[in-house]
Amino acid sequence: MTQLVNRRTCEPVNIRGTMKRITASIITIGDELLIGQVVDTNSAWMAQELNSAGVWLQHRVAVGDVREDILLALEEEGKRSDIVLITGGLGPTADDITKPVLCEYFGGKMVVHQPTLDHVIYLFEQVFKRPGALLERNRKQAEVPDVCKVLKNERGTAPGMLFEKDGKIFVSLPGVPHEMQGLMKDHVLPLIKTTFNAPHIGHRTLLTAGIGESVLAEMIQQWEEALPAFVKLAYLPNFGMVRLRLTASGEEALVETELDKQFAVLKELVKDFLVIDADLPMHEVVGKVLKESGKTMSTAESCTGGYIAHLITSVAGSSDYFRGSVVSYDNSIKITVLHVNEETLTTIGAVSEETVTEMCKGILALMKTDYAVAVSGIMGPGGGTAEKPVGTVWIAVGNKDKTEVKKLHFRFNRKRNIELTSVNALNLLRMFILNNS
Amino acid sequence: MTQLVNRRTCEPVNIRGTMKRITASIITIGDELLIGQVVDTNSAWMAQELNSAGVWLQHRVAVGDVREDILLALEEEGKRSDIVLITGGLGPTADDITKPVLCEYFGGKMVVHQPTLDHVIYLFEQVFKRPGALLERNRKQAEVPDVCKVLKNERGTAPGMLFEKDGKIFVSLPGVPHEMQGLMKDHVLPLIKTTFNAPHIGHRTLLTAGIGESVLAEMIQQWEEALPAFVKLAYLPNFGMVRLRLTASGEEALVETELDKQFAVLKELVKDFLVIDADLPMHEVVGKVLKESGKTMSTAESCTGGYIAHLITSVAGSSDYFRGSVVSYDNSIKITVLHVNEETLTTIGAVSEETVTEMCKGILALMKTDYAVAVSGIMGPGGGTAEKPVGTVWIAVGNKDKTEVKKLHFRFNRKRNIELTSVNALNLLRMFILNNS
Repeated sequence: MTQLVNRRTCEPVNIRGTMKRITASIITIGDELLIGQVVDTNSAWMAQELNSAGVWLQHRVAVGDVREDILLALEEEGKRSDIVLITGGLGPTADDITKPVLCEYFGGKMVVHQPTLDHVIYLFEQVFKRPGALLERNRKQAEVPDVCKVLKNERGTAPGMLFEKDGKIFVSLPGVPHEMQGLMKDHVLPLIKTTFNAPHIGHRTLLTAGIGESVLAEMIQQWEEALPAFVKLAYLPNFGMVRLRLTASGEEALVETELDKQFAVLKELVKDFLVIDADLPMHEVVGKVLKESGKTMSTAESCTGGYIAHLITSVAGSSDYFRGSVVSYDNSIKITVLHVNEETLTTIGAVSEETVTEMCKGILALMKTDYAVAVSGIMGPGGGTAEKPVGTVWIAVGNKDKTEVKKLHFRFNRKRNIELTSVNALNLLRMFILNNS
Repeated sequence: MTQLVNRRTCEPVNIRGTMKRITASIITIGDELLIGQVVDTNSAWMAQELNSAGVWLQHRVAVGDVREDILLALEEEGKRSDIVLITGGLGPTADDITKPVLCEYFGGKMVVHQPTLDHVIYLFEQVFKRPGALLERNRKQAEVPDVCKVLKNERGTAPGMLFEKDGKIFVSLPGVPHEMQGLMKDHVLPLIKTTFNAPHIGHRTLLTAGIGESVLAEMIQQWEEALPAFVKLAYLPNFGMVRLRLTASGEEALVETELDKQFAVLKELVKDFLVIDADLPMHEVVGKVLKESGKTMSTAESCTGGYIAHLITSVAGSSDYFRGSVVSYDNSIKITVLHVNEETLTTIGAVSEETVTEMCKGILALMKTDYAVAVSGIMGPGGGTAEKPVGTVWIAVGNKDKTEVKKLHFRFNRKRNIELTSVNALNLLRMFILNNS
């Protein structure tokens, strides 16, 4: 069966069959999202999972803890999508009003759900080890609208709730990320699989470095314009690098064959700038290179303050290749721990080729690793001079035989300067390892 | 003039005047948000700024790079709010379609905006230092609908665009965070100030530790129930700590007086668990305590891999009190750099009271700081045993005279276990400093 897909929306156009695109909306509830006190990380995770399950997330909405706004969102998203996922507002305190509003919208009445109450009591007694802390408001977590199917939350007291209305599925989930994720994996994704005959959605992503979005677009323009209508290309620039993502939706064999074919062409077109042909962040790419070659690394960090070490160790299994780091924030630490010459610091300064070179050699000797990376710079907002303005960064990468340095300059705020310095330092290390192994 | 406000929505109810609540919507455009490849941090920043400007962000919507979905969102949000902010989809590549869709919606035609073109050429020649890299698609960044007012983007090539329709204001901004933030500060927030007579919105936030959301709610229930109708309380639990936020909206003097009064009562009610009476994260609180007392700190990190050092150094000016860190990921580094006894590691193990105590003493001696914190634990998903399951963490805090330790256990994924360990370690350090200075 041939599947064609609209180019822009990736909507499968089934010539002879009945397969249609399955769509979803996410409603996040909570004033904290609307006054900006919390960054919404749940939606990105849910979007990835829905996408893998063949569901096209077409709309995401955030509303406050306001009855009328929640009711309107339920109405609008129920019209728009096949699946409506609702997160947040299920806590035990008075500002959490999601549950009564859901009860009102779906026309039920609140009842105690005994298995949930048993679970809440179990959690307080056996897991939290605080049986005395169980309050009436915690018991209330076990009250649910009698028109929902309760989804057990193994990780917390607020259960998930499944509703159906006019052929659409609504699922209410707690906003705590690991509880929401558990409920998605345990209940929602399996339910989607059994309920819908979702079309296959395929992706291929690669990471490039050393080339801007516009020049890249120019380089692959001819190929991009000749892509079949059901394959879509997205440019995802970040940290001065650009990810390219191909997406197609439809019948699985057709989608995968076409994606493989086009991805092979794309990889060849961008090969001079290709970091990896997978959707991995730079620190995982470096980890992969080290793990495959059985080598080790360490970091000596001044301006990044441990962020490079954090990125590397955020990956499970990084103890196979990462031995450690010295964050030499104060110059005295550069001297006493990393054995940078005091004279280098007083005459040339901490942000210099000489200092990062000595830091790199110092950490290699101290931690006895195959490779090391060292950084020193001025992240801002203060600390800049005419000669060394905010954003000036020196990076050194090396092994026992040689050291390579690079000077970079970033024009952003402190947080972003730290991130950019770290990712670029890891990319330099990656290239050094590939060229010197 | 008396201002009353609806309790749940904080909508000012002006008994004799005409002041009304100014509302905003945010539309974020881009498939990358809907397949979860990018976390939306822009919205939280924009929400904070709007809130400070007296504007109530009531709705946030994310749509893909799909013409029909963008048009519908413009229509819906234009009906809903006074101000509609649109971010994303303004890049130079073919998947960015926001500009032509805006042109269509507001009924204009595309024209070259000469000052923007001059600015694009200036950026390539003078800032990026790559005049040869200026492509036709970059020049296209200077094309705008002739029905908009162009807002100059000092930080990038895509200009902001201001539209008006049916008395509502629409502003299109690039999705790159620092460019968006610049345009908000340079143009959008001043425009809001001059265009609308926005009511004052006031907040008071405090941070508690060592008490759960439910018990806290119980403790302050009487006070909460007696709050005036125009003051709203929100519970914001995170990292096992709970922030409490009071919000009120209306006439400035009335709002501020009432907030001061209620906040003083609240602080007294929760005083045994109060970390700080401001909206600061734990690492800034620790920095503040150190700065005020002129003391220094260092960290010895195993399982957190540098994340504590990163949190501390993410604050500008942290070099005043932070000297450095040793990330002793590999046990050999604990021995050679921090002088932990090899026997301690082989007999008792790295995740133990003895090891973190020796790590703490080791880093104090190495970095010569007034205080230090040391952590060792098992962050998962691998590495757990029956005796020391995943999530087991030992923390030591100390000065030259004494060391205090604490064992904690977290039940989450690797990322969250690292974050929770770090924040809890910093809270222990904070309490140690307060009790030993």
